[in-house]
Amino acid sequence: MANSTLNPAIENVREEVINWRRHLHQNPELSYHEEKTSKFVYETLLSFGNLEVSRPTKYSVMARLVGSQPGKILAIRADMDALPIQEETDIEFKSKNPGVMHACGHDGHTAMLLGAAKILSEVKEDIKGEVRFFFQHAEEHFPGGAQEMVDAGVMDGVNMVIGAHLMSDLDVGKIGVVYGPMMASTHAFWITVKGKGGHGGMPHETIDSIAIGAQVVTNLQHVVARNTDPLDQVVLSIGKFVGGEAGNVIANSVEITGTVRSFDVKYREIMPDLVERVVKGVTEAHGADYDLKYICGYLPVVNDEEVTKIIEDTARELYGEEGLDFPKPKMGAEDFSAYQQKAPGAFFMIGTRNEDKGIVFPHHHPKFDIDEDSLEYGVNMFVNAVFNYLK
Amino acid sequence: MANSTLNPAIENVREEVINWRRHLHQNPELSYHEEKTSKFVYETLLSFGNLEVSRPTKYSVMARLVGSQPGKILAIRADMDALPIQEETDIEFKSKNPGVMHACGHDGHTAMLLGAAKILSEVKEDIKGEVRFFFQHAEEHFPGGAQEMVDAGVMDGVNMVIGAHLMSDLDVGKIGVVYGPMMASTHAFWITVKGKGGHGGMPHETIDSIAIGAQVVTNLQHVVARNTDPLDQVVLSIGKFVGGEAGNVIANSVEITGTVRSFDVKYREIMPDLVERVVKGVTEAHGADYDLKYICGYLPVVNDEEVTKIIEDTARELYGEEGLDFPKPKMGAEDFSAYQQKAPGAFFMIGTRNEDKGIVFPHHHPKFDIDEDSLEYGVNMFVNAVFNYLK
Amino acid sequence: MANSTLNPAIENVREEVINWRRHLHQNPELSYHEEKTSKFVYETLLSFGNLEVSRPTKYSVMARLVGSQPGKILAIRADMDALPIQEETDIEFKSKNPGVMHACGHDGHTAMLLGAAKILSEVKEDIKGEVRFFFQHAEEHFPGGAQEMVDAGVMDGVNMVIGAHLMSDLDVGKIGVVYGPMMASTHAFWITVKGKGGHGGMPHETIDSIAIGAQVVTNLQHVVARNTDPLDQVVLSIGKFVGGEAGNVIANSVEITGTVRSFDVKYREIMPDLVERVVKGVTEAHGADYDLKYICGYLPVVNDEEVTKIIEDTARELYGEEGLDFPKPKMGAEDFSAYQQKAPGAFFMIGTRNEDKGIVFPHHHPKFDIDEDSLEYGVNMFVNAVFNYLK
Amino acid sequence: MANSTLNPAIENVREEVINWRRHLHQNPELSYHEEKTSKFVYETLLSFGNLEVSRPTKYSVMARLVGSQPGKILAIRADMDALPIQEETDIEFKSKNPGVMHACGHDGHTAMLLGAAKILSEVKEDIKGEVRFFFQHAEEHFPGGAQEMVDAGVMDGVNMVIGAHLMSDLDVGKIGVVYGPMMASTHAFWITVKGKGGHGGMPHETIDSIAIGAQVVTNLQHVVARNTDPLDQVVLSIGKFVGGEAGNVIANSVEITGTVRSFDVKYREIMPDLVERVVKGVTEAHGADYDLKYICGYLPVVNDEEVTKIIEDTARELYGEEGLDFPKPKMGAEDFSAYQQKAPGAFFMIGTRNEDKGIVFPHHHPKFDIDEDSLEYGVNMFVNAVFNYLK
Repeated sequence: MANSTLNPAIENVREEVINWRRHLHQNPELSYHEEKTSKFVYETLLSFGNLEVSRPTKYSVMARLVGSQPGKILAIRADMDALPIQEETDIEFKSKNPGVMHACGHDGHTAMLLGAAKILSEVKEDIKGEVRFFFQHAEEHFPGGAQEMVDAGVMDGVNMVIGAHLMSDLDVGKIGVVYGPMMASTHAFWITVKGKGGHGGMPHETIDSIAIGAQVVTNLQHVVARNTDPLDQVVLSIGKFVGGEAGNVIANSVEITGTVRSFDVKYREIMPDLVERVVKGVTEAHGADYDLKYICGYLPVVNDEEVTKIIEDTARELYGEEGLDFPKPKMGAEDFSAYQQKAPGAFFMIGTRNEDKGIVFPHHHPKFDIDEDSLEYGVNMFVNAVFNYLK
Repeated sequence: MANSTLNPAIENVREEVINWRRHLHQNPELSYHEEKTSKFVYETLLSFGNLEVSRPTKYSVMARLVGSQPGKILAIRADMDALPIQEETDIEFKSKNPGVMHACGHDGHTAMLLGAAKILSEVKEDIKGEVRFFFQHAEEHFPGGAQEMVDAGVMDGVNMVIGAHLMSDLDVGKIGVVYGPMMASTHAFWITVKGKGGHGGMPHETIDSIAIGAQVVTNLQHVVARNTDPLDQVVLSIGKFVGGEAGNVIANSVEITGTVRSFDVKYREIMPDLVERVVKGVTEAHGADYDLKYICGYLPVVNDEEVTKIIEDTARELYGEEGLDFPKPKMGAEDFSAYQQKAPGAFFMIGTRNEDKGIVFPHHHPKFDIDEDSLEYGVNMFVNAVFNYLK
Repeated sequence: MANSTLNPAIENVREEVINWRRHLHQNPELSYHEEKTSKFVYETLLSFGNLEVSRPTKYSVMARLVGSQPGKILAIRADMDALPIQEETDIEFKSKNPGVMHACGHDGHTAMLLGAAKILSEVKEDIKGEVRFFFQHAEEHFPGGAQEMVDAGVMDGVNMVIGAHLMSDLDVGKIGVVYGPMMASTHAFWITVKGKGGHGGMPHETIDSIAIGAQVVTNLQHVVARNTDPLDQVVLSIGKFVGGEAGNVIANSVEITGTVRSFDVKYREIMPDLVERVVKGVTEAHGADYDLKYICGYLPVVNDEEVTKIIEDTARELYGEEGLDFPKPKMGAEDFSAYQQKAPGAFFMIGTRNEDKGIVFPHHHPKFDIDEDSLEYGVNMFVNAVFNYLK
Repeated sequence: MANSTLNPAIENVREEVINWRRHLHQNPELSYHEEKTSKFVYETLLSFGNLEVSRPTKYSVMARLVGSQPGKILAIRADMDALPIQEETDIEFKSKNPGVMHACGHDGHTAMLLGAAKILSEVKEDIKGEVRFFFQHAEEHFPGGAQEMVDAGVMDGVNMVIGAHLMSDLDVGKIGVVYGPMMASTHAFWITVKGKGGHGGMPHETIDSIAIGAQVVTNLQHVVARNTDPLDQVVLSIGKFVGGEAGNVIANSVEITGTVRSFDVKYREIMPDLVERVVKGVTEAHGADYDLKYICGYLPVVNDEEVTKIIEDTARELYGEEGLDFPKPKMGAEDFSAYQQKAPGAFFMIGTRNEDKGIVFPHHHPKFDIDEDSLEYGVNMFVNAVFNYLK
């Protein structure tokens, strides 16, 4: 089945996909709290007919399109959760939920996969084998929804899994393909610096957890700058530092939360020790105590060569050589890797940057936005990848 | 009138004073929000009769006891506000308001002054001159209620002003007397480190406000350690550092709030410049911007020699030599200094520490408590100082 | 000509090569001061006969072996300078020059190339074309001897250039081959923090250059940890920090010297600005001045595919698959890149680690040593590469 | 005996005193190396006649002037050692010894005491009792020459001891008098941060002692800023930080030397622990080891009330009220305190600042100088104090 046949179908869903995305954008929900989002997806999928729609976990949704003839099983995954960020865009369909925002594009992912599901559900008779649509909760938050869905059996029997991410540093019109390591292994840690509160004018009677916490952050810069192989790719970032309630009261304790990213699995051994060494040494240097929780989270996304080739070929077929891009790996993490432990898989990128429209802000930025023209590319890629694989 | 005559009167109010204090403790209100507190004080004062009770400002209360014969005017001040601290004591009358606590003893100050007002209101005929009772709001928060009350005219005609603070490092039974400088000049500052948020795995596309804010705190340690005269007494403390919402998202900005204390007024010139120099240099070092608000707050409390002598003599008369203590000045600030700009005044300390009862935590600590036996000392001192001065 | 023919020749020079290396090791000279070293090399080369020996620059030596028949020109380079390190080994032929040590293996490089020159000079009649032996001064020190020798014309007419480095993290018996980027671009910088000296007990009358310099070093850790792409390989190290003369005198100024390494040439633009931004911001934060000299030194060593293939084939021919290793690129710098700007070239590694003999210390370590068995591998590789290329 | 009688005598020695001072200034010697200085002083004293000149220790000198009648014994002390500072003045009699400078004024102290000794030796018959002149070595360097001289018995029988310091922040013409604590207790410490050297491009194979040492210095700022009572006077300064030999070699270890000053003896207990806690914690945070040597040196100079009164009266008598100044205590240390353990004593200041002449640089500064007009004041004070005490 040629892509020319499908184009009209895509034309037909284009507006719906945009509306879905806007609805989702306006109603973002945090990881593990995708109640309304998953209800919306569930009901929308039901409305298409021809799909077997289920809830593998509380807030995830799976739709199965069982083709008219037996064949291989291809899974496509979208994620649905939003981030604890206060939106600062000027768009009309801005988040209605204070402090919560679709700042990573998962609204678009969900809308694109709904679009693909709708189109494919209408050509059920042309499908040989099965397509599974995964609408995953909690990609942004450890331990991640992917593993829960895998544990619930969604990958049973799957022969190949694909997924995509709208990408803010790739121009709209481009499909980004990466062979091998594509997204980082990610760790999370939570430090509590436990000092002793007291009067701001009498520091010697306190243990100043903020001053000590600041030294922890400063000394943690050494971990990447001094203790990791410069030839490896390692990041350590602190995303949250919260301590104290008033400027003139020395804080009892401080909470510091951070992330580590790397591609080499050896850092799952090395980094927890390096982080603890710094936290222990610095707090002891100033007479404080600490708690440290360190979790080695998502495995790296490493793309299967054969599946990646299918993605590359599909993109070239649809958009020609100029529609293809071969970006560097990303330090971002993705629990898409959980599916890849069960079947060969490939993750790819869909460009959504558009400087002319001012769509230039990075993921997780309060002004992040997507060019909605990019949504069609995703729908198109998913639908055609299905036909290229299940033909 | 001899103190022996008064003792029975004090015996009579003792229980009431404790009950008032417990009521206030259980219902703490933040600075500038002393709505119920001031209403309670207002109505209690009215119930004594013989007092002219007014509200100089929205949440302050003044009671005037105009004696039977003309004479000098003595003002006594108590403060009524609580702190943004979550109480962690086990007392029965623990704060009912989450995150708000009488952690500095102002509940006791108010109760003691109510007790003194009650006793004195009952001996109006013995008063020569006038006693003014100031129940001040907002001592803990710039610009402070004292200046507002002064601006409202409460000090007009006043010849002498006194006030006291329950003191957690002075044993119950002791009155602390300080000649000259007693409490520090206090400054407050608010720093915003303005970076650029983004993905925790791609720090080079962001400006990491938490890492930079940590360097600001670390570099600010130099101000006291390197840039002030070791012979002077200067403190700079950061009481609050808040930035970021998730461990894997680099924070757009960070809020840092702090305090400076000193006795020498020259630091009202020097410190704002030193703090800004550090904030500007460090943020520029890492490509960030900043906002800085710096307020030179309360003037130092400097006790008048003559008034202090009256306090010392009153204490010796009541409690003998062993009831007197001459502590070092305190780095804490007090807007009692605002009254001292208008009339000679003295501030003194009332010991409230009691190791046997486990009452050992410093002011502003979540476990701060007072020994309620100390309340009687305050009532006694106020009442007798009135008689010693207005005789 | 087969390598089997040469083996006896190599056997003959083995002892001489070791003796030369030991002589050089015992008499190390710093970069640009290779007076006795170059004299020794010059005279040794002369003693071989058949070579045209010259001094392209004051302390470098070139020997030309012009073959019996016309042909291509192959250059082989060794470096001769030592490091300002106090040797801490227990070897018999330990450095006689206090504070100077062959801690990088250049003594071995020179000895190996002398060995190759001796063998090849004895088979001049078999050479088709020309072999040039470069004995380079000042590899360890900017701006480096390679560029000076290139400027002196040593590369004129050269068709291919090779060089090798004894490698402390590669086992003896292994030849390390890297295609493409192999050694980093290297920068050097010199910072002077200019404070104001004075009495250690009166810091407020001084500008404490040591405390400020420490903050410069600490803040510079952010450059790699926060401001460079984690996918790129960048290092910034401070190798020297010198300030002050007595513990109780605050130092007028501090000298800080460091190095930057990267493979991507864009960092030759980015890093000088990032370093200056930190130095400027931090010194201004504390009222100090600064001087900064930043030199973008050696270009990265990027190996030519074709020449690297010759090296790989030569190694496989000599030592089989188990003699080959394909290590990661090195963050170390090498001015061998200067030759590569003039002709296709390849740099390779010769393993010299031997844990059984305790030869495990890294380059530039006071206990660095080489396994002298490795010298034969270098001689062998050079001689056979000549025959493989000039055949 | 009236000061008017002495004035001509002082006129007579004025030029000699200046010449002696210039000779000493040009030939400075470090603490414990005052070989030529003490020889010069010894011979000059001998030349006066009437004095019993001896050498209590290798490089110190004592002269005894035994009066014609029995009486009390007064000791006057001058110190003779110079500092490891490279002089940067433009004076004609600049230091001839590279890196050594009389940057604290001890040249002047010695010259003034020689002047007083000469005058007094000429009026031996007027002396009732005994004057001892102490020319002390090694004031600038622990454990200090004062204690050695005391141990050698110089204070045996002494009833009162005085000494003076030329003071760069006091205008010439002023005598500075301090009752009670005048100069600080002083500690010295030596830290070695023991890392692991290596290649600057491979930090993960090293333990970067310079980066860690910088963190030690930065974290040590907390000791004064956070861990000492702001009401006390405490200083901690690092005067020396030396590590590394080349910018591209990571340093094996770093030497950090510093000083602590305070007036309260409790810090002789507190500070060694606080410093070690920081050094231990920070080095452990980064995997390094350390050595720490901490010496609690000179006791504080605390002036005896009676002796200070003699100094004050002498100054008023000579120069009137305008010649008197009552400066704040100094954070500088002085082993004059060693003499004060044996007899009541007072140390005072002689102003030597002269802005019109550009004499404004602080002690220990490379451009430190004295106004030679101040020397006469010292001679005058010593001579008259003798007569006021021994009359």
